[in-house]
Amino acid sequence: MAAIEKIEAGFYRVPLPVPLSDSTHGTMTSFELITARVRDTDGAEGVGYTYTTGHNGGAVARLLAHDIPEIVGREDADRIERLWQKVWWGLHYGGRGGPSVLAQSAFDMALWDLKARHANLPLWRLLGGHDPAVPCYAGGIDLHLSVDDLVKEHDANLAKGFRAIKMKVGRVRMSEDVERIRGLRGHLGDGFPLMADANMAWTADEAIRRARAFEPYGLVWLEEPIIPDDVAGHARIVANGGVPIATGENLRSLYEFKALIAAGGVSFPEPDVTNCGGITVFMKVAHLAEAFNLPVTSHGAHDVSVHLLAACPNRSFLEIHGFGLDRYIGEPLPMREGNAIASERPGHGISFDWAGLGKHAAA
Amino acid sequence: MAAIEKIEAGFYRVPLPVPLSDSTHGTMTSFELITARVRDTDGAEGVGYTYTTGHNGGAVARLLAHDIPEIVGREDADRIERLWQKVWWGLHYGGRGGPSVLAQSAFDMALWDLKARHANLPLWRLLGGHDPAVPCYAGGIDLHLSVDDLVKEHDANLAKGFRAIKMKVGRVRMSEDVERIRGLRGHLGDGFPLMADANMAWTADEAIRRARAFEPYGLVWLEEPIIPDDVAGHARIVANGGVPIATGENLRSLYEFKALIAAGGVSFPEPDVTNCGGITVFMKVAHLAEAFNLPVTSHGAHDVSVHLLAACPNRSFLEIHGFGLDRYIGEPLPMREGNAIASERPGHGISFDWAGLGKHAAA
Repeated sequence: MAAIEKIEAGFYRVPLPVPLSDSTHGTMTSFELITARVRDTDGAEGVGYTYTTGHNGGAVARLLAHDIPEIVGREDADRIERLWQKVWWGLHYGGRGGPSVLAQSAFDMALWDLKARHANLPLWRLLGGHDPAVPCYAGGIDLHLSVDDLVKEHDANLAKGFRAIKMKVGRVRMSEDVERIRGLRGHLGDGFPLMADANMAWTADEAIRRARAFEPYGLVWLEEPIIPDDVAGHARIVANGGVPIATGENLRSLYEFKALIAAGGVSFPEPDVTNCGGITVFMKVAHLAEAFNLPVTSHGAHDVSVHLLAACPNRSFLEIHGFGLDRYIGEPLPMREGNAIASERPGHGISFDWAGLGKHAAA
Repeated sequence: MAAIEKIEAGFYRVPLPVPLSDSTHGTMTSFELITARVRDTDGAEGVGYTYTTGHNGGAVARLLAHDIPEIVGREDADRIERLWQKVWWGLHYGGRGGPSVLAQSAFDMALWDLKARHANLPLWRLLGGHDPAVPCYAGGIDLHLSVDDLVKEHDANLAKGFRAIKMKVGRVRMSEDVERIRGLRGHLGDGFPLMADANMAWTADEAIRRARAFEPYGLVWLEEPIIPDDVAGHARIVANGGVPIATGENLRSLYEFKALIAAGGVSFPEPDVTNCGGITVFMKVAHLAEAFNLPVTSHGAHDVSVHLLAACPNRSFLEIHGFGLDRYIGEPLPMREGNAIASERPGHGISFDWAGLGKHAAA
């Protein structure tokens, strides 16, 4: 048995290569990255991380640096389910979501990385080993772009090897959304996988109205049409909108996914491993989706999520996000024929450029 | 218009007069208190606070000191609904619960205090003005006590003026719970209001089994029988347990209360103003409960909650908690014939002993 020896938290404000915008978060020029390095008494290290769009990062770092080490002490690093319960319940009053579950997600990711490294297995094999080739798409954060610039964005992604793309919707007027989807669909041709993401811009009824207007353009899915809290609204949109619905980046527990899935409120459950409770919860959500005969997709953290989807028979698309963290990761995620390929390196197999990140250390 | 001039966060680790225990949090020897002082450009000040059972407090303080001031800037302090939305959405990614909503609750409380002081009204009048006399009960945190010590605890509370009491349940064996309830009920006599709090100790089926065993002893309510995430389980307990159910201290939004109330999963909604989203959300939960023909009760922060319940026609009991914060508040909450009396001082009318608290400042 190897016990937890040290948990080291890092907090960085990483500038974006280009500013991004969507219907909810406005314009973003940087994101917050919070890292967790867990060392065990054998001297091995596992690495996890989480991120935010600009707030809560200091709170997450505080929880990783103070509260979680106090709660876990020097427990056996290999008993992840036990540690998960200990952290969830240790933080429950005042936690149960928010920065607490982001911190827990990063810690949990580090523990799984550590376990897989000890076993000398890549995560995707340790967690199930379905297929290392995972269809992926470029997640455009492009609500501000004109149709012409959308087309240019797409062509650049095609040149990078992508065979699927997601665009933002949620302009004030529905006609603008329709025009942008129609324009891009015309350029892509029928059958090219295209998704659209509304970032919670609408009420349920407005979402149904827009979904029906988008229906002729064959979207793979419409993402986050409404706030994550409105389970009954999601069920109405799935039943009446005529377009499959993806959501999950703002759900913070297995229970929240269960409530939405059991209510028939989602077609593509979309957990984010950095905020749903970590790899432990992501895999349970994937298996829950399988039990409901649903595919599972992912949000964010593609370098780690590729392993989780590669483990699952019901995996659908992997999102390749636009935050530019790749600049600080040693090994770029390889892509072949529109598939991202999970590596055979032990653990998640990514190594951070700590010196490069250090230039963006936040206080 | 008076704009927000400064938000000052305080973070204290306050020792408990005596250690407390329940079925979930184990033994506690201190609690974390996080305060928010909002000063406006007129030089007036409003004060809010939140607390935890021992973790997350540093994260809450960080959010109050850094993230919330960044998000709100120098907005009009009087437009609380607008500020509430701005903070909720500013913190949403990585927030939407947890330490973020505790910080928001403290900030929101300070804004309402400030508004009421400017209007020269006590909060209970500003918010509706139903009846300043609110029936209250002593919330015992006493799972470790024997029947004899429970009886002594009760007699001490009776001497203090209480005419209702809550005890903890959730011992490993159901027979121990029944024995303790039977013992205390025998001492109290029929009709004396007695509640029992399980702090999420059970599954839904175990909760139904115990509720039925408790039924002969006439509990006003059974509190938090299961985790807050299990809405369907709550509905089964209400339908089949034979004892009214209170819950809410671990719900973090109006939407979570709506989901539970609309599902028929709670008899006494029990928001905590320090973690549900503040006074703004507490009052909406109270009105939502009224729309469903349900009473509303409160958890924690009795010195402020008394005003909120005094504002509402559907108010039931006010919980008087056991954290001993009273030692650091200038004006004790007066009680008459088992009722707590909301003060006529402007705002919530409480003033902290900042020098006394300063001795417990946390890093």
